Amino acid sequence: MLDRLTVVLVAPRNPLNIGAAARAMSNFGVFDLRLVQAYDLAFREARSAVKAGHVLAKAREFPTVAEAVADCSLVVGTTSIGARAIEHPIRRLEYGGRLIRKRLSVDRAALLFGSEKFGLGNEDMAHCHWLMRIPTRDEHASMNLGQAVAVCLYELARSTVAARQAPESRLPASSGDLERISTLLLEVLGRAGYVHARVAGSTELKTRRLVRRMGLSTHDAEVWLGMLRQIGWKLNQPPGA
Amino acid sequence: MLDRLTVVLVAPRNPLNIGAAARAMSNFGVFDLRLVQAYDLAFREARSAVKAGHVLAKAREFPTVAEAVADCSLVVGTTSIGARAIEHPIRRLEYGGRLIRKRLSVDRAALLFGSEKFGLGNEDMAHCHWLMRIPTRDEHASMNLGQAVAVCLYELARSTVAARQAPESRLPASSGDLERISTLLLEVLGRAGYVHARVAGSTELKTRRLVRRMGLSTHDAEVWLGMLRQIGWKLNQPPGA
Repeated sequence: MLDRLTVVLVAPRNPLNIGAAARAMSNFGVFDLRLVQAYDLAFREARSAVKAGHVLAKAREFPTVAEAVADCSLVVGTTSIGARAIEHPIRRLEYGGRLIRKRLSVDRAALLFGSEKFGLGNEDMAHCHWLMRIPTRDEHASMNLGQAVAVCLYELARSTVAARQAPESRLPASSGDLERISTLLLEVLGRAGYVHARVAGSTELKTRRLVRRMGLSTHDAEVWLGMLRQIGWKLNQPPGA
Repeated sequence: MLDRLTVVLVAPRNPLNIGAAARAMSNFGVFDLRLVQAYDLAFREARSAVKAGHVLAKAREFPTVAEAVADCSLVVGTTSIGARAIEHPIRRLEYGGRLIRKRLSVDRAALLFGSEKFGLGNEDMAHCHWLMRIPTRDEHASMNLGQAVAVCLYELARSTVAARQAPESRLPASSGDLERISTLLLEVLGRAGYVHARVAGSTELKTRRLVRRMGLSTHDAEVWLGMLRQIGWKLNQPPGA
């Protein structure tokens, strides 16, 4: 779906930022980079940047924003400054990302980023259907260009399903293993003099619960069994052996 | 809540990356940066970086990961390589972020990032409760350090409420305004010869629906009214006037 997204950098000045934008695009599977009024030198230097070669090699240059977004049915500008762009609706990335994803499911959309120093100008913004801002602190709203691209693309790539789902879980240890560990641990504690005869019953229950709270996987259960067997064996040896 | 988060950079080599990490921290309101085995020179150069001064000024150096995370009750390592770290549970950022936020609501947590070249080593990972990966493409999983920090902090700062909510909406135009616009537009179209008498009724309905699909705000409705009044006035002038 993100292959329908176009990233447009307007008047980027720093080759490191162009390279960083291209790298983030490659990370998240976005391959169509377009540059508007990029400094020639910056673009040439960026092309030599590592780790984003295929994105930069296919990047295209356009003289105007209008030409760069001509084939996109949704054009969204990014901004960190709310006040200047009051004429345009501004959406937070969390919500704007949803709208962009929706459009990408059927058509091509463009995401515009302005120059490092000034952001998008009013003329650039006039080509946008709406603006989007990353929810940064008011006291330090302006992000580095490469980081802003990475954050926006992550929001578009992130999975709401993954957020709700527990990850591929480790196989939990069986109750049989947990009981073997409890028994071995109690034996070891008994030999070590930890268990007082008077409270042995209560210690046994406490130990059993303690082991079940460990949340062990099958693999970790085996490791614990091995450790406890070895300790039990050692404690069984005559002193000084 | 994010003021309870600690960012730990282990063996960072590039001052630009240290500076970028600090800048992203400031953007998202995270202020506790700790460095483990940073190259002295890299750290000194980073300190002179702009736009993240207060975070870098307060950054602390530690000789070991153990010392850097001693006061944190949750330690999460970041990785782009699933296979190497198979011993540890690995969670995607969307889900892992939720767990970290939950912990931050009651206690201090640390997020570890490894060196640019090698990531976190096995020894560093052994200090982590679990690992987290950003959902990048398998073919190009490894992110730039500064961008990885920005994406992780954005996920922690992002609001699920904002994702569901429409933004501060513009005041929608009243039906009275929409009707005035429809009437004026029909007048203009009539004078311009667009409306054929034979289909005038159907054109009227089409125009009324067209105007209602514009999704106008009160402000834009006024602009349209002004434009149409002016066009209507001009069309009413004798030819050549």
